[in-house]
Amino acid sequence: RISWISDIIVVVSPENIETMKTIIEKYGHKRVTVVEGGITRHRSIFNGLKVFAENEFSSHLLQKPEVVIIHDAVRPFVEEDIVSKVVMAAKEHGAAGAIRPLVSTVIASAADGCLDHSLERARYRASEMPQAFLFDIIYEAYQQCTDYDLDYGTECLHLALKYCKTSAKLVEGTADLWKVTYKRDLYAAESIIKDNLSQQVCVITNGKESLAQVGFLLPESLKSQIKVEAIAVSLSKNDSRLQNIISGQCYNFVCVNDKRCAIQETQELVDMLEKSNIPLLCPVVLISVHLDISENNSFSIGMEDLTTIKKFARETKKKNILVYALLIQYK
Amino acid sequence: RISWISDIIVVVSPENIETMKTIIEKYGHKRVTVVEGGITRHRSIFNGLKVFAENEFSSHLLQKPEVVIIHDAVRPFVEEDIVSKVVMAAKEHGAAGAIRPLVSTVIASAADGCLDHSLERARYRASEMPQAFLFDIIYEAYQQCTDYDLDYGTECLHLALKYCKTSAKLVEGTADLWKVTYKRDLYAAESIIKDNLSQQVCVITNGKESLAQVGFLLPESLKSQIKVEAIAVSLSKNDSRLQNIISGQCYNFVCVNDKRCAIQETQELVDMLEKSNIPLLCPVVLISVHLDISENNSFSIGMEDLTTIKKFARETKKKNILVYALLIQYK
Repeated sequence: RISWISDIIVVVSPENIETMKTIIEKYGHKRVTVVEGGITRHRSIFNGLKVFAENEFSSHLLQKPEVVIIHDAVRPFVEEDIVSKVVMAAKEHGAAGAIRPLVSTVIASAADGCLDHSLERARYRASEMPQAFLFDIIYEAYQQCTDYDLDYGTECLHLALKYCKTSAKLVEGTADLWKVTYKRDLYAAESIIKDNLSQQVCVITNGKESLAQVGFLLPESLKSQIKVEAIAVSLSKNDSRLQNIISGQCYNFVCVNDKRCAIQETQELVDMLEKSNIPLLCPVVLISVHLDISENNSFSIGMEDLTTIKKFARETKKKNILVYALLIQYK
Repeated sequence: RISWISDIIVVVSPENIETMKTIIEKYGHKRVTVVEGGITRHRSIFNGLKVFAENEFSSHLLQKPEVVIIHDAVRPFVEEDIVSKVVMAAKEHGAAGAIRPLVSTVIASAADGCLDHSLERARYRASEMPQAFLFDIIYEAYQQCTDYDLDYGTECLHLALKYCKTSAKLVEGTADLWKVTYKRDLYAAESIIKDNLSQQVCVITNGKESLAQVGFLLPESLKSQIKVEAIAVSLSKNDSRLQNIISGQCYNFVCVNDKRCAIQETQELVDMLEKSNIPLLCPVVLISVHLDISENNSFSIGMEDLTTIKKFARETKKKNILVYALLIQYK
């Protein structure tokens, strides 16, 4: 997703390595190396770093990077912007990490289970991911640190400070960096994905002159509410712009046709979607607009056409592509 | 919801007082007094406490309680169990509050925006709600505290410690005490409500001998997976057990009939649901089982009956009551 990242090391528990490899293959992820994790967070991260430094952990030693980013899979909504900020800060300061305001007050308890003291909330922050480091600094820190650190520690920034005297730059992160921890977080994550997918629509006209006006007016009126891509293209040709839009995870399409060739054009788009390999875990919505621009009022659609469209929509629904047909008389 | 709480003070911002009063009236909430909030958290809580001590804040002075519970509306899933534990601890120690493990490491930043130090995560906790206090202690603390505390402080346990030398007992809370803060939390909250509503089903038979066996076997086989209430009752009578089940927020019903009087019985239940005033924001699911226990094989249901059931289900769906009919031949 982020082109300037040269290698991605995924640290996985031994029992999930095969599953992870299947996922990587299925979705065609590139630049990925899978590494076996350790029994604690720090041991896993250390294993990941060794790929760049020790031969035994990889069949071919990857080129040692200047900066390494450490991130949790439980924070799937990280934006390129924050990754970039953290990396730039790490280049300058040697280490950097995302932070967020505390949602609750933090307190220390005494041995008897009673309140010892509470921290002034404004003076403290929650340390989140991503974090970034000059590779030599964080690798040195992991080599120096004790077994106690590896077994009970949780904070990479702490290791950089303790063993390399590098005080990390703290960078304000966004709310979406939260950790997917509880079952309820899965629902929250699903809602964010759906929200994102509904933010963009692609309006397709087939390039005929008669449809040009609609192809212009519809995007114009939609664009105040939603991100709109409008293209005029014959769907029977393999258009690379449309393919780029599809692989950019656009899940909503309005396809404007004059009614004669409606189903064929819609079918072409469905074929492209299927071939595109985008994960159809969320439904793609495809509104097929059949536009009648004839001057006379003798407009009608036969029962046979209706049945064909219904049957077609029923078939595509099984593939999680929801086709709606709209019949409009337009003068 | 919790019977041993004698009064509930709801502190609301001035612009929302009318809305709150409408909600209280609509759902028939009892024991509730609405109080105008202040411009900070502590000032709002102080206003709430004054209802028990100062005449000007209420038309009739409420009886001063021994223990007062302080809770946030943004934590709607608090269980009676944790409220009870916090109250008992407050009776013994003067103050008590719910805590949770920290999800992220907490760090302190230096003036230059770099890491100063990180806290050892295991030694600290997030302070959550509910909290409880001997009324005299927390009221004394609020009377003593400074304007700075009222304007910038966030932690009631801190005030009790600082001004009344009362060290609060800390009680482990459940994950559901989290603060509904971001938009994603609304989706998470919705999922928890739906989960809860799907945990209970009520099986209703009409008390006829011929159905007694089914009325016994069905709950027996369901109860390993879900909480089941089984009652034998004629729906045409106003049965108080059934009314209690409905007002206890049961949203799932299986209604076993012999087929002759199926629709009438189902209609009675729909009427009861509508009259019960339970908020139908989530759909009620009502499975109407039409059981044929006749010996001969001449079992059939006419087109007319089918149409009636379909029409009925379509009508109830508008009220968010989903009716499904099941036709079973049983020997």
